[in-house]
Amino acid sequence: MRALWLEAQALRVREDIPLPVPPSDEALVRVHLAGICNTDLELVRGYYPFEGVPGHEFVGSVVEAASAPEWVGRRVAGEINAACGSCVSCRAGRPTHCEKRTVLGIVARDGAFATHLRLPIRNLHAVPDPLSDEAAVFVEPTAAALEIQQQVSVSPADRVVVIGAGKLGHLVAQTLAVTGCSLLVAGRSPRPLALLAARGIATASVSALEPRAADLVVECTGHPDGLELARRAVRPRGTIVLKSTYHGKAEVDLARFVVDEITLVGSRCGPFPPALALLAGGRVDPRALVEARYPLAEAVAAFEHAARPGTLKVLVECS
Amino acid sequence: MRALWLEAQALRVREDIPLPVPPSDEALVRVHLAGICNTDLELVRGYYPFEGVPGHEFVGSVVEAASAPEWVGRRVAGEINAACGSCVSCRAGRPTHCEKRTVLGIVARDGAFATHLRLPIRNLHAVPDPLSDEAAVFVEPTAAALEIQQQVSVSPADRVVVIGAGKLGHLVAQTLAVTGCSLLVAGRSPRPLALLAARGIATASVSALEPRAADLVVECTGHPDGLELARRAVRPRGTIVLKSTYHGKAEVDLARFVVDEITLVGSRCGPFPPALALLAGGRVDPRALVEARYPLAEAVAAFEHAARPGTLKVLVECS
Repeated sequence: MRALWLEAQALRVREDIPLPVPPSDEALVRVHLAGICNTDLELVRGYYPFEGVPGHEFVGSVVEAASAPEWVGRRVAGEINAACGSCVSCRAGRPTHCEKRTVLGIVARDGAFATHLRLPIRNLHAVPDPLSDEAAVFVEPTAAALEIQQQVSVSPADRVVVIGAGKLGHLVAQTLAVTGCSLLVAGRSPRPLALLAARGIATASVSALEPRAADLVVECTGHPDGLELARRAVRPRGTIVLKSTYHGKAEVDLARFVVDEITLVGSRCGPFPPALALLAGGRVDPRALVEARYPLAEAVAAFEHAARPGTLKVLVECS
Repeated sequence: MRALWLEAQALRVREDIPLPVPPSDEALVRVHLAGICNTDLELVRGYYPFEGVPGHEFVGSVVEAASAPEWVGRRVAGEINAACGSCVSCRAGRPTHCEKRTVLGIVARDGAFATHLRLPIRNLHAVPDPLSDEAAVFVEPTAAALEIQQQVSVSPADRVVVIGAGKLGHLVAQTLAVTGCSLLVAGRSPRPLALLAARGIATASVSALEPRAADLVVECTGHPDGLELARRAVRPRGTIVLKSTYHGKAEVDLARFVVDEITLVGSRCGPFPPALALLAGGRVDPRALVEARYPLAEAVAAFEHAARPGTLKVLVECS
């Protein structure tokens, strides 16, 4: 099959990748659309030593599912962590933290920038008919945004600041807006902020943020200096949620976190069912983020486009 | 009066410091004993630009309290944050985070290494008769240790690791032991660990810690590399409490906190009433930590002693 291949931090499209052969508890999925995430760009930069087919945001349809044939033909999104089911984390109810997990397009499992992929059947979620492929491809990052609300209570009484209005910050803002909290999104460039303003979400430039005032700050900048911006914005005893991952270390003045008793919460993958529900009901609508679509044959150009500063979502048409 | 004076990162004992003149809502306290804390040592190293009399761990007796004469003659410990009562933090019930606070011996308020100090009357807590001065001087750091339990739930089901068995780690361990949690204290040198073992608390060398296993890790090392040790010991979705403050920045691989969804909680000053109750009931007994007592006239030598690696608590007899 055709697939995008990452090796030694270089990408190329190959035609010679064998079609995945799913074991009996997995499904073969034909990929319709796949989205380029910052984690994909970081993988190319060496954030994690992955060799294979990248890509973990997708919508597709099931071609084969030996042990659950009722899935064949259904349109699906898929959870990206394939868990062992028996390690300490799995038995404690934390399958996304399985110590032996493979992760679609990230850890030891070929991903979505291919005509086909395989995933455990239990990772699949049916996409409701009214939801277009172009919206459904955002289920995974929308679920990741919703992880914040799994970890931290957010209520209409809370002053919440999202720092970073890129792909991730935008989805985080839309999902937080659902809570009725007092929400402000801070960014550096006007264009992505305007997309949020068009949805009625308050925006500001990073430099205009009130210091030490927010109950909750969500760091979505994708840069090591984002944490310091978040620290300045959060109130004493407030909470900072870290959403972005990037290669490299940050210099952190930990004493400030102690003196102000700040809580820092790392946040990764989240729940698919509410993400599907919010997208299907139109309460979260990510389609304005889409800047370009490329066929799989031009996936290298798609990545180059996605890596340009200020680019929002680039999609790859895989089959 | 006689007092220890910190100026330009140098300490000297002075005899010419005027006796404090308390405003009507404050008390004049004669200091019996004061303890040297790592924060004091960090102040001398320039952690915070304080000039004046350091010291914030004390037990003393009230000499003057114009608006509350019933306090005169009583033995007291004192909360160290003097709050304004009217700022956003105070009105939100976070007086220890008052934006205009002074802090005894740390921020814009002369401290306890003196024959006398002044503090707001509302900061005072009566010391019960059976509690010796040598134990009561530990009320403030015991309260700081108990702040952990104000911020994070700790139960007998939790596997808790304290990293660092110095002054602070020891008190943190004793207060956590009260919860019935499964507790292990990790340190580098055998002597302070032996003090904990003598109280029935399990100990280990840092290098023997099981990786990624603890539900809660409390970082009490006082070193920037302590956070990385804590991160290795905590399980995915576990919590690290940062107790130690020190001058300088730490290099932190923030992506690990995101991927493992670790929560980091900065923790500072805590509640005095339960600290007094635990000390008075003997459930926390810090006296084994005392390595030396110096008269105030020899407070500079006391600081030199306290700064030697591996030293536990050094007390100063102030009056």
